[in-house]
Amino acid sequence: MLPAIAQDAQTGEVLMMAYMSAESYAETLATGRAVYFSRSRNQLWRKGEESGHVQRVLQVFLDCDADTILLKVEQVGGAACHAGFSSCFYRQVTPEGLKVVGRRVFDPEKVYGQKK
Amino acid sequence: MLPAIAQDAQTGEVLMMAYMSAESYAETLATGRAVYFSRSRNQLWRKGEESGHVQRVLQVFLDCDADTILLKVEQVGGAACHAGFSSCFYRQVTPEGLKVVGRRVFDPEKVYGQKK
Repeated sequence: MLPAIAQDAQTGEVLMMAYMSAESYAETLATGRAVYFSRSRNQLWRKGEESGHVQRVLQVFLDCDADTILLKVEQVGGAACHAGFSSCFYRQVTPEGLKVVGRRVFDPEKVYGQKK
Repeated sequence: MLPAIAQDAQTGEVLMMAYMSAESYAETLATGRAVYFSRSRNQLWRKGEESGHVQRVLQVFLDCDADTILLKVEQVGGAACHAGFSSCFYRQVTPEGLKVVGRRVFDPEKVYGQKK
């Protein structure tokens, strides 16, 4: 299970970090869409399956230790985060505490209904 | 122990991914320099301590699940990778195999001597 970072290929924004199993990595390469492994649900996580906000994988990189993956993606829908922000890293650590600085693209209730 | 992604604040290049303990996170915030935790050496890893290639931390972000850290940094020396590349993600996964696409900034032998 390796950590995989998704970065917006156009803007350079770091969108999210999730994990990939060998199976999800293989499916990502085969389909050109980001597939992670959900450790909480213990199953393949085809990003955007429910919301439609899939990630088209344009380039894949491996780090020097070959234990971290970097994906350059096109984020369909403009938001990678289930909370509706373009990036999951929408909160900045400041001396006054966490501050929401991210760009909200959608309302999670409208996309996921009453489930979240 | 949380994964921490370092991104070049100016270019947007994803430089590396490493881990932070509570202690290394606190020292990072206190000193404004990236301090990780080396899982192989089981000790604090003050990035650049040996090479001089420290990372000045300009901004810190937390993801939606509060389990991954994103650092926007100024990479002194221009290279985050011990192999001399600006980014640790210097190899692209291609149908023909791994291809070195990164930009080499320094010669590791000159920086680290005979040790690597």
